[in-house]
Amino acid sequence: MEIREVFARNLKAARQAKGLSQEELAFRAGIDRTYISSLERSVYNASIDVVDRLATVLDVEASELLKRRPETKIKPLC
Amino acid sequence: MEIREVFARNLKAARQAKGLSQEELAFRAGIDRTYISSLERSVYNASIDVVDRLATVLDVEASELLKRRPETKIKPLC
Repeated sequence: MEIREVFARNLKAARQAKGLSQEELAFRAGIDRTYISSLERSVYNASIDVVDRLATVLDVEASELLKRRPETKIKPLC
Repeated sequence: MEIREVFARNLKAARQAKGLSQEELAFRAGIDRTYISSLERSVYNASIDVVDRLATVLDVEASELLKRRPETKIKPLC
């Protein structure tokens, strides 16, 4: 999986775990809301400064947002 | 510690652990040698694509390169 996609998924999961909307996260991190939306759709190549700023607001380590998680295995029905 | 400095230290440590010069890492990652040098001096704000490309060459996870390590405590002599 591309690192942008890893980051996009982790960002969205951490934001939702924190109960924040994209607007609220954007406001707290001082980043435009459309930029957050683009990051969650893997459109942009974020800088590590932005990753760290978002991580701080989300109370996670920056490294957590780049962590590759095991892919969910889809079990065949039969 | 600023995330750029965290990345700079981890990058240098991972490069040295792999026994690579800046030139060799640059060549294998397809990145200019002076850029590697700048990253190790916290000059630039790397993108996550670059972090991942370097991590791949260094056989580590991209997240490892952004991990904050405990600071080394300097023990007073007396």
